[in-house]
Amino acid sequence: MEDYHKPDQQTLQALKDTANRLRISSIKATTAAGSGHPTSCCSAAEIMSVLFFHTMRYKVQDPRNASNDRFVLSKRQAFTDVATGSLGQGLGAACGMAYTGKFFDRASYRVYCLLGDGELSEGSVWEAMAFAGFYKLDNLVAIFDVNRLGQSDPAPLQHHVEIYQKRCEAFGWHAIIVDGHSVEELCKAFGQAKHQPTAIIAKTFKGRGISGVEDKESWHGKPLPKNMAEQVIQEIDDKIQNKKKLSPALPEEDAPVVNIRNIKMPSPPTYKVGEKWATRKAYGVALAKLGHANDRVIALDGDTKNSTFSELFKKEHPSRYIECYIAEQNMVSIAVGCATRDRTVAFASTFATFFTRAFDQIRMAAISESNINLCGSHCGVSIGEDGPSQMGLEDLCMFRAVPSATVFYPSDAVATEKAVEIAANTKGICFIRTSRPENPVIYNNNEDFHIGQAKVVLKSKDDQVTVIGAGVTLHEALAAAEQLRKEKIFIRVIDPFTIKPLDKKTILENARATKGRIVTVEDHYHEGGIGEAVCAAVVGEPGITVNRLAVSHVPRSGKSAELLKMFGIDKDAIVQAVKVAVSKSRNAE
Amino acid sequence: MEDYHKPDQQTLQALKDTANRLRISSIKATTAAGSGHPTSCCSAAEIMSVLFFHTMRYKVQDPRNASNDRFVLSKRQAFTDVATGSLGQGLGAACGMAYTGKFFDRASYRVYCLLGDGELSEGSVWEAMAFAGFYKLDNLVAIFDVNRLGQSDPAPLQHHVEIYQKRCEAFGWHAIIVDGHSVEELCKAFGQAKHQPTAIIAKTFKGRGISGVEDKESWHGKPLPKNMAEQVIQEIDDKIQNKKKLSPALPEEDAPVVNIRNIKMPSPPTYKVGEKWATRKAYGVALAKLGHANDRVIALDGDTKNSTFSELFKKEHPSRYIECYIAEQNMVSIAVGCATRDRTVAFASTFATFFTRAFDQIRMAAISESNINLCGSHCGVSIGEDGPSQMGLEDLCMFRAVPSATVFYPSDAVATEKAVEIAANTKGICFIRTSRPENPVIYNNNEDFHIGQAKVVLKSKDDQVTVIGAGVTLHEALAAAEQLRKEKIFIRVIDPFTIKPLDKKTILENARATKGRIVTVEDHYHEGGIGEAVCAAVVGEPGITVNRLAVSHVPRSGKSAELLKMFGIDKDAIVQAVKVAVSKSRNAE
Repeated sequence: MEDYHKPDQQTLQALKDTANRLRISSIKATTAAGSGHPTSCCSAAEIMSVLFFHTMRYKVQDPRNASNDRFVLSKRQAFTDVATGSLGQGLGAACGMAYTGKFFDRASYRVYCLLGDGELSEGSVWEAMAFAGFYKLDNLVAIFDVNRLGQSDPAPLQHHVEIYQKRCEAFGWHAIIVDGHSVEELCKAFGQAKHQPTAIIAKTFKGRGISGVEDKESWHGKPLPKNMAEQVIQEIDDKIQNKKKLSPALPEEDAPVVNIRNIKMPSPPTYKVGEKWATRKAYGVALAKLGHANDRVIALDGDTKNSTFSELFKKEHPSRYIECYIAEQNMVSIAVGCATRDRTVAFASTFATFFTRAFDQIRMAAISESNINLCGSHCGVSIGEDGPSQMGLEDLCMFRAVPSATVFYPSDAVATEKAVEIAANTKGICFIRTSRPENPVIYNNNEDFHIGQAKVVLKSKDDQVTVIGAGVTLHEALAAAEQLRKEKIFIRVIDPFTIKPLDKKTILENARATKGRIVTVEDHYHEGGIGEAVCAAVVGEPGITVNRLAVSHVPRSGKSAELLKMFGIDKDAIVQAVKVAVSKSRNAE
Repeated sequence: MEDYHKPDQQTLQALKDTANRLRISSIKATTAAGSGHPTSCCSAAEIMSVLFFHTMRYKVQDPRNASNDRFVLSKRQAFTDVATGSLGQGLGAACGMAYTGKFFDRASYRVYCLLGDGELSEGSVWEAMAFAGFYKLDNLVAIFDVNRLGQSDPAPLQHHVEIYQKRCEAFGWHAIIVDGHSVEELCKAFGQAKHQPTAIIAKTFKGRGISGVEDKESWHGKPLPKNMAEQVIQEIDDKIQNKKKLSPALPEEDAPVVNIRNIKMPSPPTYKVGEKWATRKAYGVALAKLGHANDRVIALDGDTKNSTFSELFKKEHPSRYIECYIAEQNMVSIAVGCATRDRTVAFASTFATFFTRAFDQIRMAAISESNINLCGSHCGVSIGEDGPSQMGLEDLCMFRAVPSATVFYPSDAVATEKAVEIAANTKGICFIRTSRPENPVIYNNNEDFHIGQAKVVLKSKDDQVTVIGAGVTLHEALAAAEQLRKEKIFIRVIDPFTIKPLDKKTILENARATKGRIVTVEDHYHEGGIGEAVCAAVVGEPGITVNRLAVSHVPRSGKSAELLKMFGIDKDAIVQAVKVAVSKSRNAE
């Protein structure tokens, strides 16, 4: 209550006018477009009016100013900082912004997030609620627009705002129930400063102000017919008094200037060829190092930091590590929020397969043109004993289908360090796939890596087959090459480095030099991984054949080497595939 | 309290003995395997002992008996009915079992679900909590094993059991705090019958009973060294008195006999060739019809039933429709739970793209060998104005990467009805992709459909290119054929019906008959969809070329036809691609 000053009557009327103008705009726009959500807009009209013309502090002419208050519209619509429309994702992004404001920027801007009551059924909202409560994000205000009606039915709690209040309180929030159509109650509620995140639970009516539509089912997502729209607009217009013009308060401009461009490792990698390193550990080493290059590099993890090795970053930069606990959806949304307005370079890690939990958040991050880096460890059957629930076998497929994604699959510690550095400077969603087993370093520390540039790691003039592997399977391919050499069969071995984009040129050139024969081998299911990417790249090229080795069904638990053998992606399987390829073409000759 | 009788002292001691024997087993097994979670087992030893030897009613020799009480171990381990290991999914499956017991079986079995405190950070748990509270699942008991320690850190709420209690109560549960190592308190808590779901919040210690390990960090997921194990086992063994043998109570055997095999539509489809139908609507029609064939067919939706048309099923079979509200992860878990022990045939629907929200649940359903049917509507840019957040453009990719999945993509109303019928009788995960636009019926009602059998829908001896489309793009291909015919260019058009498995044979035969030329066209991203599936199927076959038309970047909002054109997957784009294919090969000749 401390800092609340009641607005004068003229201001209150002007806020009401603004709300009604918003109603008219939403009706006009949706009727003209023949699509949209006028009833949902009408329930939130007063909330938007008070937020934008009374409570929030921002520069109208400079909407991306770092010191502006932030606003996230989590209800079905798109706004500047993050795209929404897939429900329940806005609050997580808002939490990321608030965390950044409080702990990284240490600035006075606040973050407001408007949610619909329907989306409160999404678990991702409660992950964010728990996060905000745990970190006491006192610069965060969530407004629940409880308009009672969902798309096809009333929302489960209807207008029982007191239950929402209980839930919010149990998750560590200060929760205030208000009449969501009273600008005065809203002004007062927003004026309350607290030492917790604040939830404004606004009881509203869907379609408020539209005669015959208000609080009625089956009007969800429907524009008004033209005649009806004209009449309703007239009715609403009659209520507008137009006595005072409002303009928003200005921000404090205390957000620091930040530069996250061109982040370079402070020194080259320091590995030795032949030393054994798990790429998951090399990820942690690289990230900790990158943290010294720029103090806006941050790391997030979901209680797996001792497995993904993001704990190495935490040890060196504890204030820039965000523990997101076991809530992968929210972790991705937090990363998205932290990355808005270029305030941080976020690296979020968990087991590769647990990113499936956040596929919708990742998809929406791409639509938002968000720049985030995700590292998935424990890929494939090679993790061994922990069993199929922990094995990433569909992550390449998932990330390849994300439009803005770059998919790194480094095969040794040096390549991993380079991938981390490149990812930090690459727009869009960057995914880095790391492995659990330790394998030898194969690249020199000064080796140059680029997105879309494969490495030919083994080559002779007598090569008969091109084998493409990555991570553990690249090392299996190298072991296969050694065994085949004893039988005078030589193979070329290619490390793609990035699976998306894929280096079609290098693959084709080498395949042609090896009589068109390609064998791909991957610790991933057949669908959507390296093999299919290669097939799509080379199909139709004369004389090219592709034999794909990949995991073909749900695996089981076992020792890493046993499982690689059992699922036909180890050295012996490659040897066998190479021999078949060679003999097939001989027979054809 | 009503039906609680305090066990005698001998029984209590025997329950303690059993708990200690469980401790010894878990230590022995994990030390021998060199992998596993002995400390997590020790925190839950008394809980498991009381559940299995005092509270639960089941036949030891008949673990899948329909009348047995159910047990779901949501903490990292696998159990019979559903696989867990990806945290936060067990309670949703348990809710599905409890809903089935209460509303479909109307039987007296109860469902017990043991959760760890770490996984309570997953939003999916709170989706399930809300579901159980809303439907007042009084046959469901969740036990929270609050052992304070996560994998890499303490869980956020540590031992603040009163906060867990508040959260449970706010979500509509009866919540009881107990000492999780007191068999007496546990017996009492389990004996309390309530008219709500019950949460037993058990304060426990990780590694309880293991000297030097109890309540200590950094012992997560680590077996004890051999020497240490031997000593600890001796210490625990000394506490065992062995005075009474326990055996579980028997179930009431009141679950009805159910037969869900060989479910046939009561009558053939009744469409007319040329009539315009959206496949999403044909899905609703088919499902409602199938509901008359077997009263164990159920439908679930996430507040989109008026868009997916599952509302048609609800209208005819209201008691067999489960409204899951906007919580897609939980919806899939509920379906998995309902389908356990072959109690129901579950069809769950939402927008295709919102299944990305549940990818982890779908992945785990495959590992569980669950038989569920998922229908995703609103695929692709052809949905029109609602914008990219609502467009399913990665669903084929996602479902193809699910090992047990069958992926149906019906192109007209007849094919949709057949897909629904086949899915009901097919093991594993069945996905049916439906479209929003209305397109003509092209098949006769007596047309026969089979998994993995494509249809050649247009064919002449002069065909020069084989075009493969599905859904809206099949109709674009047919329109293209008509236009090309005027220029005396003839094409063959193939409808794959299922994308996984793909009918390689039919595709190859027809491609060969059209000079090897294939054009694929899909309302989906390039990665992991029809085009890549076709490439992987035909790569290496001499003389085959594939030109893939697909959506190449994040779309925007617009009219359906405009977007098909803008993203190069409409009639004109196909005409163009066909002409290029023809002229290319001419030049090559």
